[in-house]
Amino acid sequence: METTSRGIEILPVRGVPEIRPGDDLADIIVRAAGNGLRAGDILVVTHKIVSKAEGRLVDLRGVEPSALAKRFAAEYDKDARQIEVVLRESRRIVRMGRGVIISETHHGFVCANAGVDASNVPGAESVCLLPVDPDASARRLRERIAQLTDLDLPVIVSDSFGRAWRFGITDVAVGVSGMEPLADYRGGEDPHGNPLEASVLAVADEITAAAELVMGKTDGVPVAIVRGYGYRQDDRGSGRDLLMPPERDMFR
Amino acid sequence: METTSRGIEILPVRGVPEIRPGDDLADIIVRAAGNGLRAGDILVVTHKIVSKAEGRLVDLRGVEPSALAKRFAAEYDKDARQIEVVLRESRRIVRMGRGVIISETHHGFVCANAGVDASNVPGAESVCLLPVDPDASARRLRERIAQLTDLDLPVIVSDSFGRAWRFGITDVAVGVSGMEPLADYRGGEDPHGNPLEASVLAVADEITAAAELVMGKTDGVPVAIVRGYGYRQDDRGSGRDLLMPPERDMFR
Repeated sequence: METTSRGIEILPVRGVPEIRPGDDLADIIVRAAGNGLRAGDILVVTHKIVSKAEGRLVDLRGVEPSALAKRFAAEYDKDARQIEVVLRESRRIVRMGRGVIISETHHGFVCANAGVDASNVPGAESVCLLPVDPDASARRLRERIAQLTDLDLPVIVSDSFGRAWRFGITDVAVGVSGMEPLADYRGGEDPHGNPLEASVLAVADEITAAAELVMGKTDGVPVAIVRGYGYRQDDRGSGRDLLMPPERDMFR
Repeated sequence: METTSRGIEILPVRGVPEIRPGDDLADIIVRAAGNGLRAGDILVVTHKIVSKAEGRLVDLRGVEPSALAKRFAAEYDKDARQIEVVLRESRRIVRMGRGVIISETHHGFVCANAGVDASNVPGAESVCLLPVDPDASARRLRERIAQLTDLDLPVIVSDSFGRAWRFGITDVAVGVSGMEPLADYRGGEDPHGNPLEASVLAVADEITAAAELVMGKTDGVPVAIVRGYGYRQDDRGSGRDLLMPPERDMFR
């Protein structure tokens, strides 16, 4: 069959050690991938190791919770200091109840707990934030990997987000560099000649979701290679392209 | 590097012809895949060809639009008959404006236009509906493929849904048979010994998103094989498992 041609491979990059602030993450990824990187590959990197390398960890022992954080934490048996960090990382609260805060982050992402996460962080008293600018993080990784390997590979920084109306989280792209994150079919036609209307595909999110399948939550695989997808090179492609413009957002 | 081991392949199944009501879709898929199917493969099939095989097409020439459909269509320059079909496929309107209807379908999916779609349907006067029971459709395909090949392969029926707050659509699983669509890490620990809290992954949606990457909107590839993912076999796994239970839904 023809299925063996032009398929896509999703490859885990194993052997990435625990990342510490200041680490040269690109160098660590390139070493872990051995000689395995090829032209055309897309690298998907979980934000967790990017944030760690960038020092985006908060020691809760130094956090003084506000009255709002204390009340919410008391009601739902949460750590008030962690709630305080969530509030600080938010620019707008979308929902707050049942022990969950859904908010818009300073970047514009709408997600649970403003991307603040205590899992996969060493030490019970620390939490991990999203990178300050995940697109810039992706760009720096891409540029440093190009320096090290002579390969200009798109880089996606991922996080796991919940969704309205659907159960379970999926990985999405929060930072993108080197590729067009959307595939825009508007104005095109299907094979029957009908116009394609609502057809802007969030391919960077689909690539990121695919990468998650080889990462898992507990497997210690924070990097994956997506090989064989014919992405469109775009130096201005950005994770912000994947945010619904506020004027079109029916769920603000 | 170790990336060559235990990766996942996403393979397009080409050569599926235009599907007509009553076609033996499983037989067509097996033929298109040649001898290419293997134990452990997951088949992702777009709902469009499932709906066509099941005759879930509506000829708009026989649809009498309601007053509500007429008003909405006039305001946004839409086909009132198609709006009428959307209303009939809905059990609850979530948002209605800007020419878009977001509704809950009779199955419980919240999506644009109740899954009613005019693209990739032959004839300007026809629209395609979601299958009546996408889980049952997936199960029938799985059972018939097992008859034909002696392989019991999970089958996912997919559709493209928009998301709140994010731009661009992604493919999700609307019907599932033969696998656990969620990977539940709750109660587990990360490698640092911290509890994993919000960690139920919608792996069936991630698999479906991955499959879309080899399908595209205009390539005429309505089936993909996902190979190498260690799914959990589950005869009761269902697309309904991917719906947020109403009592936990913060966005109803």
